[in-house]
Amino acid sequence: MSAKKKLNIGVIGCGFMGRTHSNAFRSAPNFFQLPLDPVLKKVSARTAGKAKAFAENWGYESFETDWKRVVESPDIDIVDIASPNDTHAEIAIAAAKAGKAVMCEKPLGRNPGESEAMVKAVEDAGVANMVWYNYRRVPAVTLAKQLIDEGRLGRIFHYRTVFLQDWTISSDLPQGGEGLWRLDAGVAGSGVTGDLLAHNIDTALWLNGNISEVSAMTETFIKRRKHNLTGKEEPVRIDDASAFLARFANGSLATFEATRYARGHKALYTFEINGERASIKWDLHDLHRLEYFDHHDEGRLRGWKSIHITDGDHPYMKHWWVPGLQIGYEHTFIHQVADFLCALEQGKSAAPTFRDGLRTDYVTSAVLDSAAGRKWVTVRGA
Amino acid sequence: MSAKKKLNIGVIGCGFMGRTHSNAFRSAPNFFQLPLDPVLKKVSARTAGKAKAFAENWGYESFETDWKRVVESPDIDIVDIASPNDTHAEIAIAAAKAGKAVMCEKPLGRNPGESEAMVKAVEDAGVANMVWYNYRRVPAVTLAKQLIDEGRLGRIFHYRTVFLQDWTISSDLPQGGEGLWRLDAGVAGSGVTGDLLAHNIDTALWLNGNISEVSAMTETFIKRRKHNLTGKEEPVRIDDASAFLARFANGSLATFEATRYARGHKALYTFEINGERASIKWDLHDLHRLEYFDHHDEGRLRGWKSIHITDGDHPYMKHWWVPGLQIGYEHTFIHQVADFLCALEQGKSAAPTFRDGLRTDYVTSAVLDSAAGRKWVTVRGA
Amino acid sequence: MSAKKKLNIGVIGCGFMGRTHSNAFRSAPNFFQLPLDPVLKKVSARTAGKAKAFAENWGYESFETDWKRVVESPDIDIVDIASPNDTHAEIAIAAAKAGKAVMCEKPLGRNPGESEAMVKAVEDAGVANMVWYNYRRVPAVTLAKQLIDEGRLGRIFHYRTVFLQDWTISSDLPQGGEGLWRLDAGVAGSGVTGDLLAHNIDTALWLNGNISEVSAMTETFIKRRKHNLTGKEEPVRIDDASAFLARFANGSLATFEATRYARGHKALYTFEINGERASIKWDLHDLHRLEYFDHHDEGRLRGWKSIHITDGDHPYMKHWWVPGLQIGYEHTFIHQVADFLCALEQGKSAAPTFRDGLRTDYVTSAVLDSAAGRKWVTVRGA
Amino acid sequence: MSAKKKLNIGVIGCGFMGRTHSNAFRSAPNFFQLPLDPVLKKVSARTAGKAKAFAENWGYESFETDWKRVVESPDIDIVDIASPNDTHAEIAIAAAKAGKAVMCEKPLGRNPGESEAMVKAVEDAGVANMVWYNYRRVPAVTLAKQLIDEGRLGRIFHYRTVFLQDWTISSDLPQGGEGLWRLDAGVAGSGVTGDLLAHNIDTALWLNGNISEVSAMTETFIKRRKHNLTGKEEPVRIDDASAFLARFANGSLATFEATRYARGHKALYTFEINGERASIKWDLHDLHRLEYFDHHDEGRLRGWKSIHITDGDHPYMKHWWVPGLQIGYEHTFIHQVADFLCALEQGKSAAPTFRDGLRTDYVTSAVLDSAAGRKWVTVRGA
Repeated sequence: MSAKKKLNIGVIGCGFMGRTHSNAFRSAPNFFQLPLDPVLKKVSARTAGKAKAFAENWGYESFETDWKRVVESPDIDIVDIASPNDTHAEIAIAAAKAGKAVMCEKPLGRNPGESEAMVKAVEDAGVANMVWYNYRRVPAVTLAKQLIDEGRLGRIFHYRTVFLQDWTISSDLPQGGEGLWRLDAGVAGSGVTGDLLAHNIDTALWLNGNISEVSAMTETFIKRRKHNLTGKEEPVRIDDASAFLARFANGSLATFEATRYARGHKALYTFEINGERASIKWDLHDLHRLEYFDHHDEGRLRGWKSIHITDGDHPYMKHWWVPGLQIGYEHTFIHQVADFLCALEQGKSAAPTFRDGLRTDYVTSAVLDSAAGRKWVTVRGA
Repeated sequence: MSAKKKLNIGVIGCGFMGRTHSNAFRSAPNFFQLPLDPVLKKVSARTAGKAKAFAENWGYESFETDWKRVVESPDIDIVDIASPNDTHAEIAIAAAKAGKAVMCEKPLGRNPGESEAMVKAVEDAGVANMVWYNYRRVPAVTLAKQLIDEGRLGRIFHYRTVFLQDWTISSDLPQGGEGLWRLDAGVAGSGVTGDLLAHNIDTALWLNGNISEVSAMTETFIKRRKHNLTGKEEPVRIDDASAFLARFANGSLATFEATRYARGHKALYTFEINGERASIKWDLHDLHRLEYFDHHDEGRLRGWKSIHITDGDHPYMKHWWVPGLQIGYEHTFIHQVADFLCALEQGKSAAPTFRDGLRTDYVTSAVLDSAAGRKWVTVRGA
Repeated sequence: MSAKKKLNIGVIGCGFMGRTHSNAFRSAPNFFQLPLDPVLKKVSARTAGKAKAFAENWGYESFETDWKRVVESPDIDIVDIASPNDTHAEIAIAAAKAGKAVMCEKPLGRNPGESEAMVKAVEDAGVANMVWYNYRRVPAVTLAKQLIDEGRLGRIFHYRTVFLQDWTISSDLPQGGEGLWRLDAGVAGSGVTGDLLAHNIDTALWLNGNISEVSAMTETFIKRRKHNLTGKEEPVRIDDASAFLARFANGSLATFEATRYARGHKALYTFEINGERASIKWDLHDLHRLEYFDHHDEGRLRGWKSIHITDGDHPYMKHWWVPGLQIGYEHTFIHQVADFLCALEQGKSAAPTFRDGLRTDYVTSAVLDSAAGRKWVTVRGA
Repeated sequence: MSAKKKLNIGVIGCGFMGRTHSNAFRSAPNFFQLPLDPVLKKVSARTAGKAKAFAENWGYESFETDWKRVVESPDIDIVDIASPNDTHAEIAIAAAKAGKAVMCEKPLGRNPGESEAMVKAVEDAGVANMVWYNYRRVPAVTLAKQLIDEGRLGRIFHYRTVFLQDWTISSDLPQGGEGLWRLDAGVAGSGVTGDLLAHNIDTALWLNGNISEVSAMTETFIKRRKHNLTGKEEPVRIDDASAFLARFANGSLATFEATRYARGHKALYTFEINGERASIKWDLHDLHRLEYFDHHDEGRLRGWKSIHITDGDHPYMKHWWVPGLQIGYEHTFIHQVADFLCALEQGKSAAPTFRDGLRTDYVTSAVLDSAAGRKWVTVRGA
């Protein structure tokens, strides 16, 4: 019905992230005035039944069981990678070589080597690219970025952030295979460091600049688990928990921690930033709120303000409902699609680009090296 | 692509509610396994430009400028009324007579007379029907209903509920016309009593049973406002604030209050229920949480528990993401579509039906009568 | 050791309130620079054993078993009434006639008749007097008063307040006698209306001015209980729950509610005031915080601020510890003693005076009349 | 008036801690049935005017300007050290040699060497001793200890704790002298490590057992400040911020952080413990609450419970008021006095003893060493 230029999307992967991406492509045009009209052209999964059902559910025009057929298709404008981490590099490089714009789930690669090759591929090919660090586009987080950029916090002293879950505490939980590949180091690259801390780090680099050095510790609480693919009990090689001290280039100090053993927390991603003039807190479990303390308020009336981020002058919110009515998790992906398509129409990438993703990988790599070597490690520059 | 029976939807109205309904029909099949496949067939608005743009945005097959063409169309299976209150009765009655299933925005009519005629029409025609009291289908509210039905609260002593907004405090705000018809008593029927308290009452009747009698007061703080349609300053005839005491049939006592003059609150719909054994609290500003106090907990460890309603065993939530990731406002409409289509396929209505809506209107009517007469008023039975 | 003029205190009553008052007289001079030096001279209770133990515990110089011996004693400067409600009038009137300053626990009398006689007695005698509505002197509540007096809230639209407890839900709880006289209407005068709502009303009159009229309902959920003094099951004549709508003289609307049947709440006294420019909330369960919303904050950054009332520029707080360290319940009585002694040295009463207490009693009386008569009742002026 | 054995207290120091201790000795007998009757016998401060005024305010029988006269006095049973850190060792050792029971403000010494000598002195002399780590005796914290001891948390995975303040952010604040000795490394020993983290560590050792090793970083944000004693700008030698990673002997991981540069926090001491079966959180800014998550709750109803620690079955609370009425900061010192006197009457020390304090000092020392050496450091056993 629309007269806009159509943009054909090919999505690789039909899991949890395949759903969030499909929904984002499908819903973005309903809420944002986009310069391009995304079309759910192809989706691929390894098994035909799964791919077919997924395609029908989301309205894809066709499906494939080999991702290469998506990447090679002349019909496809954007290759969107929503498959497990061990497939990111090969697909992204092939897509870039085929001249497609590339969107990739986080983390970029399983290690900086893979990520560097991915960056080189998209930059050599000159194709638009983005990593799905979706939490940047929670309206409250985007507002935090605005406040920092406006200088409202002043000199930053402290950054503290955690990502706490509790879903792997049971020793009966197997590793590997469908829905559980995040426990398989071969597929995932690492445990919570690459899965959860990568989110904390991406946001932190965006809000507070580069991290200079880290001192980390990691732990695997449950040492052996049954592997779903081999059927045998095998050593667990991922990190169940990871924490590190950091110094940022701007002189501020930080603590980072992620775990899947924090009983009572499902996905408690929080950050707090303390500046000379103001402080900010945010929490994924109540993602529609931003906590703000402004030291310039009158003395008697200073306090932490809980801002309900649902007004038209809050980032992204004029596209949604009316004040007081909150949005949720999936909306962050919709915002990301909207921003990417707007950038693409201008021939540009939207942040976080693959190069931004590589910066995060350099930090996660330094964290793992520090934990293994029990020493402070300097973070490579990207 | 789907082999399911298609169900053609005709939506009347392109405002705020037109958007929430359109999104619900469009998204429900992506998240719920529905027995019927809703098709956005027609939409109508009074002006062609608005209707056309809306139709394009949401993917309607065609648009109309006269709602009668939607109601009369043989293609249409469900007539969905998302237009201002003064149009509800006429459209609903026509749709019922045309044998369509009818979904109607709340409140049902502007007064019990209109609502009774609407109930009669759908019951005479034997068509499925529902009123969009969407807050019943916030997962936390549905869980509250489950807990009550399981007898966990025991004898109920108290119900207290408010709906607080602050968007009409400025005396510069005009009344009437596009986006402001809620301030025009002729169109809306009443002020906050029918707009906001109707939500509180619908939920209360569902959770706590019938209300026997009420003592109410209402107030119009700003007595004259410019009317957008006449261009002249005119008396304001809606109630800006409305509060009432109530006795439920089950012997419990209640306080209800709604206002658009509660500075600091955007859409703070809350309720609390105190039972002999347990208590429940909920709050629309953090709709993904339910507060629960269980007196049977060990004495030292009793307290209000904040339940983050994002787990697979919470109502509706297995259809969404993973634990810890919240949904928002629009999802309540999606749930309502899903439930209505499932009921429809069985030849039934889903609650709240028009008759349920009439019960709410009898209470709002008693509230207005009580405030006008400064006396306790018995609520009519529906 | 002090050279200040000594002021001899005679306390009547050794219960819960006897403890809070004794502690207040004993501790106030440690934290406040007072112009007078209070001496715990005499205490009285009906049984000698209880009086003796109490006197020893708190350091009273002597004890009595007949309150008249305290009132008549030439040594006594202040008679402080901490005994059950049915003794207030007789003691206060006798003390006033004896020329003593009189402090009286709330409520003043069991009914306006008693209270009027008490007001007359102290005013005729020209003695300083005060009622122990201690919550006015929670620092957060005093700050609320300051903010209102500074005009920060602007025109007031709404006042809403509750006092929720759950300690009488069990039907096994007897009425009357030691520790349970609050359930005996003969001693207490009324149930939650005089016990709990009196607090809500005193604060409201102070913060928001006079109440013009009320519409109330009351309920006694458990109709018969064993009476501890007779040993027999007897009708319960107090109100277990009481709620009312009110209109203030300033045009604002209010809801008030108190109950001892709100499972999960121990002493949840809260109030919220919505003004044109700002709103305020407070809650006894976190009494060291004040919630404040200022509409004049920049739009994007508006929100409810939680002010931790522990700074030196907060009311009373420079006398305590350092920022961040909270005080508790008993401190409100210490503040009251400090203010009363400062006023007394100037020959004045400190608010709330007996006349202020009578104003509250006129409201509670109107509430009970309204509930009995099922009609709006105009509040008498004091 | 009491027939109990009197116990003469000699307090050294008239600052902030002198006040909290004096109030504790003075009030404890009013609320606790103690086996001994504490008498405020002597207080000392360096200047006579200050000592005299303090003695009069609190009712000490006499005052001194030389602490040795307190320690040597045959009248004194307990020497209580409330003076700056650089005086602790000398006074404590002298008091022990004089056969007095010794209570000492935290931290014990400025470094492990001083603390070891203090432990040796009290153990050689066989005198009762205690360090004023008062936060153990916040009722909510004591309840946490009970829950852990009962095995309710199961295997512990994580401990995280911070102590955040913001009072030294201004570069105009001088160092040293009255009220500011905490900024003078010569007097204080260290900055936030010994002042704030010492509290976090004491509680952690109590709740979670020994810490094996740490990796730390510290920072001094403002490098030079005017010194109040010399009048000249001098280098700041304390740590303004200190954070560390730790491994406990029980295998759990921890993060600790303290700072005086966290804008918006006055004294935000928090800890959270994640066990296999349950988790606990606590926060000094709302010290009367404990947050508790129990995984054994029914799935649908799991959540963090906010327990209002004001009931008679909560630790220490039966001595205070009635449910719902909170206590505050100073009460922790009163509880400590009560426990110490009860232990003393049995000829014992109450925890934390000097040896317990030394354990904390070994951790703070390891933290400072780790930060200086940029390496993991093993904590000495005490």
